[in-house]
Amino acid sequence: MLGVPFDAGTTYQPGARFAPYHVRRVSALIQGWHPGLGVDVFRALRAVDGGNVVFPPFDRAAMRDAVQGEVGAVAAAGAVPVLIGGDHSVALPALRAVAAVHDPVAVIHVDAHLDTSGAEVWGDDHHHGTPIRHAITEGLIAPGQLHQIGLRGPWGGPDDGRLAAGHGGLRLGADDVAARGAAAVAAAIRGAIGDRPAYLTFDVDAIDPAYAPGTGTPVPGGLTSREALALIRGLAGIRLVGVDVVEIAPALDHADLTCHLGAHLLFEAMAVIARSR
Amino acid sequence: MLGVPFDAGTTYQPGARFAPYHVRRVSALIQGWHPGLGVDVFRALRAVDGGNVVFPPFDRAAMRDAVQGEVGAVAAAGAVPVLIGGDHSVALPALRAVAAVHDPVAVIHVDAHLDTSGAEVWGDDHHHGTPIRHAITEGLIAPGQLHQIGLRGPWGGPDDGRLAAGHGGLRLGADDVAARGAAAVAAAIRGAIGDRPAYLTFDVDAIDPAYAPGTGTPVPGGLTSREALALIRGLAGIRLVGVDVVEIAPALDHADLTCHLGAHLLFEAMAVIARSR
Amino acid sequence: MLGVPFDAGTTYQPGARFAPYHVRRVSALIQGWHPGLGVDVFRALRAVDGGNVVFPPFDRAAMRDAVQGEVGAVAAAGAVPVLIGGDHSVALPALRAVAAVHDPVAVIHVDAHLDTSGAEVWGDDHHHGTPIRHAITEGLIAPGQLHQIGLRGPWGGPDDGRLAAGHGGLRLGADDVAARGAAAVAAAIRGAIGDRPAYLTFDVDAIDPAYAPGTGTPVPGGLTSREALALIRGLAGIRLVGVDVVEIAPALDHADLTCHLGAHLLFEAMAVIARSR
Amino acid sequence: MLGVPFDAGTTYQPGARFAPYHVRRVSALIQGWHPGLGVDVFRALRAVDGGNVVFPPFDRAAMRDAVQGEVGAVAAAGAVPVLIGGDHSVALPALRAVAAVHDPVAVIHVDAHLDTSGAEVWGDDHHHGTPIRHAITEGLIAPGQLHQIGLRGPWGGPDDGRLAAGHGGLRLGADDVAARGAAAVAAAIRGAIGDRPAYLTFDVDAIDPAYAPGTGTPVPGGLTSREALALIRGLAGIRLVGVDVVEIAPALDHADLTCHLGAHLLFEAMAVIARSR
Amino acid sequence: MLGVPFDAGTTYQPGARFAPYHVRRVSALIQGWHPGLGVDVFRALRAVDGGNVVFPPFDRAAMRDAVQGEVGAVAAAGAVPVLIGGDHSVALPALRAVAAVHDPVAVIHVDAHLDTSGAEVWGDDHHHGTPIRHAITEGLIAPGQLHQIGLRGPWGGPDDGRLAAGHGGLRLGADDVAARGAAAVAAAIRGAIGDRPAYLTFDVDAIDPAYAPGTGTPVPGGLTSREALALIRGLAGIRLVGVDVVEIAPALDHADLTCHLGAHLLFEAMAVIARSR
Amino acid sequence: MLGVPFDAGTTYQPGARFAPYHVRRVSALIQGWHPGLGVDVFRALRAVDGGNVVFPPFDRAAMRDAVQGEVGAVAAAGAVPVLIGGDHSVALPALRAVAAVHDPVAVIHVDAHLDTSGAEVWGDDHHHGTPIRHAITEGLIAPGQLHQIGLRGPWGGPDDGRLAAGHGGLRLGADDVAARGAAAVAAAIRGAIGDRPAYLTFDVDAIDPAYAPGTGTPVPGGLTSREALALIRGLAGIRLVGVDVVEIAPALDHADLTCHLGAHLLFEAMAVIARSR
Repeated sequence: MLGVPFDAGTTYQPGARFAPYHVRRVSALIQGWHPGLGVDVFRALRAVDGGNVVFPPFDRAAMRDAVQGEVGAVAAAGAVPVLIGGDHSVALPALRAVAAVHDPVAVIHVDAHLDTSGAEVWGDDHHHGTPIRHAITEGLIAPGQLHQIGLRGPWGGPDDGRLAAGHGGLRLGADDVAARGAAAVAAAIRGAIGDRPAYLTFDVDAIDPAYAPGTGTPVPGGLTSREALALIRGLAGIRLVGVDVVEIAPALDHADLTCHLGAHLLFEAMAVIARSR
Repeated sequence: MLGVPFDAGTTYQPGARFAPYHVRRVSALIQGWHPGLGVDVFRALRAVDGGNVVFPPFDRAAMRDAVQGEVGAVAAAGAVPVLIGGDHSVALPALRAVAAVHDPVAVIHVDAHLDTSGAEVWGDDHHHGTPIRHAITEGLIAPGQLHQIGLRGPWGGPDDGRLAAGHGGLRLGADDVAARGAAAVAAAIRGAIGDRPAYLTFDVDAIDPAYAPGTGTPVPGGLTSREALALIRGLAGIRLVGVDVVEIAPALDHADLTCHLGAHLLFEAMAVIARSR
Repeated sequence: MLGVPFDAGTTYQPGARFAPYHVRRVSALIQGWHPGLGVDVFRALRAVDGGNVVFPPFDRAAMRDAVQGEVGAVAAAGAVPVLIGGDHSVALPALRAVAAVHDPVAVIHVDAHLDTSGAEVWGDDHHHGTPIRHAITEGLIAPGQLHQIGLRGPWGGPDDGRLAAGHGGLRLGADDVAARGAAAVAAAIRGAIGDRPAYLTFDVDAIDPAYAPGTGTPVPGGLTSREALALIRGLAGIRLVGVDVVEIAPALDHADLTCHLGAHLLFEAMAVIARSR
Repeated sequence: MLGVPFDAGTTYQPGARFAPYHVRRVSALIQGWHPGLGVDVFRALRAVDGGNVVFPPFDRAAMRDAVQGEVGAVAAAGAVPVLIGGDHSVALPALRAVAAVHDPVAVIHVDAHLDTSGAEVWGDDHHHGTPIRHAITEGLIAPGQLHQIGLRGPWGGPDDGRLAAGHGGLRLGADDVAARGAAAVAAAIRGAIGDRPAYLTFDVDAIDPAYAPGTGTPVPGGLTSREALALIRGLAGIRLVGVDVVEIAPALDHADLTCHLGAHLLFEAMAVIARSR
Repeated sequence: MLGVPFDAGTTYQPGARFAPYHVRRVSALIQGWHPGLGVDVFRALRAVDGGNVVFPPFDRAAMRDAVQGEVGAVAAAGAVPVLIGGDHSVALPALRAVAAVHDPVAVIHVDAHLDTSGAEVWGDDHHHGTPIRHAITEGLIAPGQLHQIGLRGPWGGPDDGRLAAGHGGLRLGADDVAARGAAAVAAAIRGAIGDRPAYLTFDVDAIDPAYAPGTGTPVPGGLTSREALALIRGLAGIRLVGVDVVEIAPALDHADLTCHLGAHLLFEAMAVIARSR
Repeated sequence: MLGVPFDAGTTYQPGARFAPYHVRRVSALIQGWHPGLGVDVFRALRAVDGGNVVFPPFDRAAMRDAVQGEVGAVAAAGAVPVLIGGDHSVALPALRAVAAVHDPVAVIHVDAHLDTSGAEVWGDDHHHGTPIRHAITEGLIAPGQLHQIGLRGPWGGPDDGRLAAGHGGLRLGADDVAARGAAAVAAAIRGAIGDRPAYLTFDVDAIDPAYAPGTGTPVPGGLTSREALALIRGLAGIRLVGVDVVEIAPALDHADLTCHLGAHLLFEAMAVIARSR
């Protein structure tokens, strides 16, 4: 587990740099046994908290280098890197590192947004709205294996979804999760991925702001916390080679709702990893 | 679009007078393309923000006159007035103005409360608990066309619902929406209204306070944000001639949850209007 | 109705001692007629607010003695005690008092947690994580009649649930309520209890922190407010001989969400009692 | 003591209607002995809490009638009315009632604002920015006996202060209190008033928003809490015939700062009354 | 430095058990060089963070035993114990431990309250309102050496101050600090103590709630943060043998004001200790 | 007046990018007449709100170019640029632009921090802790004309202040302002500057966090709001050629305290400019 205290890629409300601290704090309430999956997570994984990745808080290139280096070292050692962001721009160097070890991977991208913005939108190319575009164009995602869950809200235009759609994979909005059920969606993802190595990148704004108010670009109409947890739990059986939970902004949170939820999302993901061993 | 910064008709917690300001602020995150309905809302509508209606903030009669005047002018010009309240007492003059142009209209009233209080409850006749009573008694609502969605919570007595029930239309509580699904409820409303001109008055306390904490008279057990958005979206096909979203109280909000939700409710309603053109 | 302003049994975040005050405050929005169950609650029950039970705020033994005494007096008079906690350790003396009058009772325990911790966990035996263990070992719960609803989250180990499971009764997690529906769950509880006297102990952390942020040990993935209210309402027909709603911590609340919800949970429970008369 | 839960005279942020409730709540921390003035306040005064004045919450004229009636009854009985507002428009009917019994009185007006707005500012004549203008023009204030303390911030124009200045009395800004000291200012007021009957109207926005964040029209640079309390305490010796503390808006407060301060302001004023008996 | 996460001695609002965690968190902004006293605090002191004292969070007797044991070990080793409370009841066992090593000490007690309540006030003898009474009656404070600074607010009766006054020492209210200046007050304390060993017990409610909102029993009219820091800094020259900063309740704090202030109070005290070496 | 919505130079808590929006919002309460300086500010200045400077929110170099360009255009036109930051790194390009027109200027730097960090502290050279170092080394500040007011808190080492001290000018801590009075400090600054062109850069963390909680790196023991306003007001007579108010972080604010204060600081500065014309 690595923290990435970075939010200099944020287009709207910053603050995600403090998420590693606060998610760790509330994780004091988490115990080790997962009754649903029947596994003692911390013992099974021999999980290690590797502290935070270190870089100047406002230097995007330095962050990318540092994250790619540390995640690469973890992955090269045969361990599964689990990241607490930070904004979503931390996912790109993590994907680069993971793909360097495992070749292009399946990506489960849980998010309200497509994250495939063009460079022209903000006059700059590396921020929290572009990691999936870079990952596609750099060939980090296996063909047909970009699974986007939780999408909703208005777009800039009808072509916004074209790049992701062209790459192939599941594309299920928050309403689809409600209609089909989180377990069925997870089963569909499992079926599509099979035994490929998979990377889960979870932007908490996939979840409705009622459950996750502490995030910078909230979109109403999202997943419930129960759906989000069941979605990850339902992935048990696939081979996760990397995980990140991003975009938790504690200064916007209330009563640690989003931090507690982030800790539980990470616990579910670690239980999935534990079960696959 | 008109703001109505008025909350002098509030029986419990005031503050809705600041909603027009804050809903506009967070609407910076809204873009124009509605992927679900496939329409570029702002282009299709040639939407104009007409600013706020002007009146002394504590003068209920002056507010009613000003709103009726401005909404009437918009409706007479063939445009669709879209209001951001303000408390629910702003709906009455808007309905008067719309009915003056379109004759009695169907009303889709989404709310936790009946809003048909008698004059004796507060010793006064014009406040946020009476607009539907006035609209019925003034003949602004077409017979059989008062559709109330989201009702719940205790009443003063068994007769509270009598006036609305006697007028006719759908009456579906929050539990009914959960049981039938928001899309099915929307379809039922569409079926009942047909091609009549319809007015949507949406009190955010119809939504559960978890999703919409920024409101003055919260009632637990309400709609989810996903249901609320789907309910409006599902109206696509009917002929909306007026819309208001009321009772957002920013001072009680957290992390702009209710303001973001209000902006999205308005966007969905505008998409429905855009689709009917 | 009795308030128990006590939180000296709290292992994590205290503050529940102020719940009686604030739940009473927001109950100003509650009226008497229950449209769903068709009963005028306050008239049917001749409900009395007995004020708060009195004891030093940091003396756990004195609290237990005082609550057992006052609840016992209410129960002995043929009335139904309804408690506003306070943390969950107030339930044990209430159960002792009720069981002294009615013999061992069925217990409907709505909670995210098992509340059967061993003495060794905190080096102390009487706190908010142990009331159900004491109730079982003291014989206050009728055999096969411990119905636990809302469980979720990690445990210390696989044996955590053994004591409760061994006693017998329904054990349904928050996911089970979502899958089966709150009304069906309530019907199953009614079926299991039959005409036995029953005690409802409702820890608000059974509900998702989005709906009930004001609580000390939140666990994501819980019941919705609609499910929680429907669960209680669906008990109509059983014979409730005691009720508590516990673990509301107003200092952690926002916009009184949890306090409003607590008042409505109590209203639903009182409506169930009213219907059974 | 009378509460006046009214804020329908508010030009900016409403919410003062809940002040009577919350100031009473936190007054639980207040005990009876004033060590500085050496008096047991509640015993000396035989203070009675007369509850709230009753009127529809949005009817300004009804509020004025009701307050004038109740305050008049208290004053006529030889008791000293102590009001918790409510916005500042509650002061006018209280002054009318007091002046009806005591003839024109000296007024100690502690406030950031002049409260002498002209009718044309808001198109309406009775709101929280006009009570002092009405009191002057109605002859409720003895000539030369309008003492305004705490003034600061920008004005509409150089003539804003003319009406108050023309009436005569002390006019001391917040900076003057800092420069001279609160005790010296109080002594100057005592000297100016002598043995005349005096009415104290205390708008909490006289105090800096750091100490009193819960108010609707905050102005930085105000009194400290220590100065405010010392100012009132220093009035001991004059003959107070009425007191109000207004413009506390609990929804904007944090950690009850403003409510606690309001309770202490009232306690100091009651100690001053107790000492004059 | 030892944390004491304990608040089970709280009569009003609890929450101080989380202070050690949050004060440490914000101490990340503190650097080592004190420009005013010209000392590199951490190097001069070879300061060690000894973590938190361990005990069940609701067991007052166990807390006292554990604190006395750990503080005694620190003091016996010739080091100066510095405690972060916790509520004020943690001071008694610390004073017992310090007095066991150094004989009765001078006590600088900075607080809004006397903390000499009688046993009968709450029906219980060990809570945050009694540590000074116990310290006096147990002979832990050298005669004439109880210096109480920051007192204010109403008392239960004129005799409340008798016990402390009888013991002897300075008694200066918050108004006295304002009138004389914090540096002069510190000089007076230094003069009174001379070269005796001294213990500083600092309750943050000595400071005005505007500066320290995160505390359980706030009293308006307190010290400013500048006065509080200058008061401690001005003690440089005396021989501090123990320090505690207590009653910080993070859940009631805003923007970490009180936690930042607590960290700076501790830094000033450590600088005073560093200067005395 | 120009807004600079930038916080990508923040080392601790970000959020200052939203300050231009919120300071403008609350400025609705500001009127034009300054009673203390006797000037109608907006009329005298013919003030124009030039909107926000535009750049990608995470690109520090682009921000510097854009600010230097826009401020330079304002200064070249003979107008006085007034900036709302943004974090303190916006001051450097503003100083560059002003010095390009006016030659090296006197700088009045009101701040808790020196802002002369070395490049090695964060491994990066352009952030909110370095603008004064760059301004000195680039020769933007006239010799002997760096006046730093409000300094306090711990340093990294005794040499931290050397660079600023070597440049020459007044160096007055927050305690010095308290001891001498804000008006006297302002007079000293006026005396030191004479008729030189002067630039005022005001970091709100100079003010105590009780008055200005909405800032990223708070330091207890700062200026009061009254002192801060008086300090600026007291500059009347000098020739201000540029002003910025920086480091307001609205997400950390409460009840808009810091935003209101920021608006008043700007108003005072504009009044000083108006008086010098």
